[in-house]
Amino acid sequence: MKIVVLKFGGTSVGSTNRIKRVSKIIISYIKKKYKVIVATSAMSGVTNELVRKSKEISNDFLAEEYDVLVSSGEQMSCSLIAGRLNHLGYKSRSWLGWQIPILTTGNHSASRIKSIYKKNIIKYLKSGGIPIVAGFQGINSHSRITTIGRGGTDASAIMLARFFKAQKCIIYTDVDGVYTTDPNSIKKAKKIKVISYDEMLEMASLGSKVMQPHSIQDARLNRIDINVKSSFKNLPGTIITKRKNILSDKIIRGVSFTKNDAKVTLIGVKDKPGVAASIFEPIYKNSINVDMVVQNISSNGKETDLTFTIKNEDLFKTQKLLKKNKKINFRKLIVDSKVSKVSIVGVGMITTPGVTYRMFNALAKKNINIIVISTSEIKISVLVNRKDLNNAVKVLHKEFNLEK
Amino acid sequence: MKIVVLKFGGTSVGSTNRIKRVSKIIISYIKKKYKVIVATSAMSGVTNELVRKSKEISNDFLAEEYDVLVSSGEQMSCSLIAGRLNHLGYKSRSWLGWQIPILTTGNHSASRIKSIYKKNIIKYLKSGGIPIVAGFQGINSHSRITTIGRGGTDASAIMLARFFKAQKCIIYTDVDGVYTTDPNSIKKAKKIKVISYDEMLEMASLGSKVMQPHSIQDARLNRIDINVKSSFKNLPGTIITKRKNILSDKIIRGVSFTKNDAKVTLIGVKDKPGVAASIFEPIYKNSINVDMVVQNISSNGKETDLTFTIKNEDLFKTQKLLKKNKKINFRKLIVDSKVSKVSIVGVGMITTPGVTYRMFNALAKKNINIIVISTSEIKISVLVNRKDLNNAVKVLHKEFNLEK
Repeated sequence: MKIVVLKFGGTSVGSTNRIKRVSKIIISYIKKKYKVIVATSAMSGVTNELVRKSKEISNDFLAEEYDVLVSSGEQMSCSLIAGRLNHLGYKSRSWLGWQIPILTTGNHSASRIKSIYKKNIIKYLKSGGIPIVAGFQGINSHSRITTIGRGGTDASAIMLARFFKAQKCIIYTDVDGVYTTDPNSIKKAKKIKVISYDEMLEMASLGSKVMQPHSIQDARLNRIDINVKSSFKNLPGTIITKRKNILSDKIIRGVSFTKNDAKVTLIGVKDKPGVAASIFEPIYKNSINVDMVVQNISSNGKETDLTFTIKNEDLFKTQKLLKKNKKINFRKLIVDSKVSKVSIVGVGMITTPGVTYRMFNALAKKNINIIVISTSEIKISVLVNRKDLNNAVKVLHKEFNLEK
Repeated sequence: MKIVVLKFGGTSVGSTNRIKRVSKIIISYIKKKYKVIVATSAMSGVTNELVRKSKEISNDFLAEEYDVLVSSGEQMSCSLIAGRLNHLGYKSRSWLGWQIPILTTGNHSASRIKSIYKKNIIKYLKSGGIPIVAGFQGINSHSRITTIGRGGTDASAIMLARFFKAQKCIIYTDVDGVYTTDPNSIKKAKKIKVISYDEMLEMASLGSKVMQPHSIQDARLNRIDINVKSSFKNLPGTIITKRKNILSDKIIRGVSFTKNDAKVTLIGVKDKPGVAASIFEPIYKNSINVDMVVQNISSNGKETDLTFTIKNEDLFKTQKLLKKNKKINFRKLIVDSKVSKVSIVGVGMITTPGVTYRMFNALAKKNINIIVISTSEIKISVLVNRKDLNNAVKVLHKEFNLEK
């Protein structure tokens, strides 16, 4: 069987008119002789409204019941799609997590799909039916409804593609693909045709609008090619796939950035084993994400300067935590709340020397000061003053020929 | 186990604040050492909104998917109640139709409960839990979600009471009981403490605001005593039970009425076998309910006059159907769209002679003309001019001592 898994996000099924549009997309694959499995999110707004109700009932709403509550959103949307396909003369039915069943492990509201029982769906596909699977939900070994944590219905679609050995997994969403940089900021941003899982993960700041990093990781682990497309415009979209599937002469795939960072510098920290751990322990425990970290070697071997970046919104809390941290000693605390991070991402830099130089040189020519540098195998990030951000993105986008 | 089944209607759980109130009612029974099983409707408005969506998708929405769609409403409300009870420190969980399971037969959207599997709920009750059962829903032999036709969650509650041999079945709703007549029209209407199933069925025009006739019939067949109470006021309510449980010196239990009737008279119908069937066949086939029917014996044995009543809204259609009916011959068609029906209901009239006389005499004294009479074992109905309706109800309510 030539199987395709189609995933529709909340905005794609956000109204009955949009559900009618989505039904036409589904039928277009049937006409191309595919067997189609659909995974759908709840209509946009529905989940938020249910979450609001749960908060009114309790500020600590029981996770087991939260899952029963919010999973009703996908129950609605999948029955509406199936109803529409029937109206148009196609055999279709909704499949809830417990009906397939989709088995999950882990805690309520943060479960992971362990296995999908195939027999019922295969039989239904063979009978000519179009199964509309409620995304985001499954059941655990106690036959309680569970929901999948971050990634939600994307994860459902990826696991359906894996278990049913689908030829395609297409994520229909409200953007038409992944861009070389944010098209809202940089007019010359171009849609990327093919990108590797790794690059996509490194471009999370742009990619998260398209897919949650968790889902990209799921796809990567299961070697599922993902095609991200718009459900509103009939355009090719972006394919996320293995590195070796990509034939491209581009060294850099894209320029990503985060706007509202803050830099914290501790001057004259008493340098002894475990001091970094002592600094970061209370920060991590308060769920504050530390991004870049740079430690300067101390000249006298007794003191060191340590710089790290966090989100601007966490700055106040971080300062408080550092000041009341009795395990550390430092002479001075300097903060800068007006910095931004720019990154270039691309698997091409592994085999191409001089990328770092080209990046720094391009920024220098525009008098953009680099505050902190951090690198990974396929990404180079620099911290710049926020006023320089837009210029930095533009010059790097041009330097690495992303406009073409 | 001392089990009580509590049913909450849509208005009783119509907001998160009302769900909080309902949770307190549930706890009050736990404090009285009852094992409580709750059956809940969807929050008021939710089902209508889902039905509206289904109509936007298709004017002939598939019944199988309709059941999946609308059953999500009870899924929400039962998880919210369970969540609230947990918040207050009580062990509680939601039980959906498929989790118990509740097995149904019959068509989708009009199923009937066939059996309720007891083991899971009994075990849960014994563990000290409060099961919150999603009303209105079950599953069929194909593991598809079904919904129960008219009566909905009332029927769920009654069947739960039957299968779990509950000591009490309490229907919490937005009215505080059944009245001797409509308290909105007649100020002297009194709440009825105890009423028999049969009387309640005959008072459907009043009782339907409290319970669907289908559910009363379910309770009657299964010999389940029903206590109808308000979830907003802590008042005794009305008990619906077997005739023999009722010790009361009241001959008449109540005065019911329907306002907007219409009377149709066919003059000079050719009297031959099967003519009544020929007249009513197209009317029934068009789903028009015929209420009272009176046929006068023809003087010459060849012609007859036939009078019947219908709802006013069906009058136009009925006239059309009669005029184009080729199987019947009549001389004249007379209609009256300004008539109303008044009924006195009570098991006492079986053993008490003269009730009919007292009724007619009381109306005559007030110069109220009786147009048509129809009787059953425990009910006498008369058709009067609409302008006389209010007076007729008042005088009968007084005549049979219902004010005391």
